Amino acid sequence: MKILIIGASGTIGKAIVAATSEHEIITANFNSGDIQVDLQNPDSIRQMFEKTGKLDAVISAAGVADFAPLAELSDANFQLALQNKLMGQVNLMRFGQDHINAGGSITLTSGILSRHPMPGSAVISMANGALESFVKTAALEITTFRFNIVAPAFVKETMEMMGMDSSFGISAADTSKAYLAAINGKMHGETLDATDFI
Amino acid sequence: MKILIIGASGTIGKAIVAATSEHEIITANFNSGDIQVDLQNPDSIRQMFEKTGKLDAVISAAGVADFAPLAELSDANFQLALQNKLMGQVNLMRFGQDHINAGGSITLTSGILSRHPMPGSAVISMANGALESFVKTAALEITTFRFNIVAPAFVKETMEMMGMDSSFGISAADTSKAYLAAINGKMHGETLDATDFI
Repeated sequence: MKILIIGASGTIGKAIVAATSEHEIITANFNSGDIQVDLQNPDSIRQMFEKTGKLDAVISAAGVADFAPLAELSDANFQLALQNKLMGQVNLMRFGQDHINAGGSITLTSGILSRHPMPGSAVISMANGALESFVKTAALEITTFRFNIVAPAFVKETMEMMGMDSSFGISAADTSKAYLAAINGKMHGETLDATDFI
Repeated sequence: MKILIIGASGTIGKAIVAATSEHEIITANFNSGDIQVDLQNPDSIRQMFEKTGKLDAVISAAGVADFAPLAELSDANFQLALQNKLMGQVNLMRFGQDHINAGGSITLTSGILSRHPMPGSAVISMANGALESFVKTAALEITTFRFNIVAPAFVKETMEMMGMDSSFGISAADTSKAYLAAINGKMHGETLDATDFI
């Protein structure tokens, strides 16, 4: 398979690259990789797909949103979550779909915080909930490729980087298994809970 | 109770006004009512709350998003759903919270299409999913009032207006019962499925 991985330099992205090494991989990041892309800029996403040619799979492990107390969230925090994490990934489907070979797949990333929120996760949970509902709904009208979203749990490496107790975290390598399931499986319109694929 | 009802001139809004007639009601609509408000304009929402004074409850039965095939959705369709139906209602909480008397409530509106989507509902389902996740998460940090969201099913009067078979629709009057439960009950951070309150 020829696979475009957006956010390939991130903790989960690197694990996905490692887990898909048998395939032809194109990496796309904000500052590095084979292609540079600004997820928040629709034109940048369109330009990325002009460079990739036809693909068998697109995997997004990208998208930015802020973790902050509700009382401190500004209009800018809300718009970042909506225009970057949410619309950035939605636009990967909108502008990428014509570049997917028949039977291919597009897989986005949400996170456990839509279903299991915590104080500070208001805009992240909002974006994740939007993404999961969008994928489920859009899939009803998508017939030529499969469209799914992976909801990672807390990633062990990220927790360690943040100085948190990582004992209930799931490693990036284990998290990548849900993405492998998404590109190799038959599911369509589903939210793949990463803990189900370890 | 002193209750602000936004979207009071709509099919559900009118039923909520009728069901809360024992209370002091302030109506707010785009073009009519006691106060005119443009949900998509944060300043308009701030100005509305300057006019209302202290409130015991805010009920939103407002918010616009388009029903259209996925392939026909433009950037504008996505942004309308995000800035009007989603952020308009999120901002009712953000800018209204300091105007709510202790023990009061804010109740928003999503809809059945986040959990039971249909072809054509992509941006509506996206906004609804975002709203439900936001309410659930924000409520974790809100201690002085209750914050919930009602998910109406298909409303019989709307279906009739659109020439659809309304036999499985729920009347606006029956739908209003979920809003009564939200202002009178003890729930916080919940999505109230309108079909549970008939």
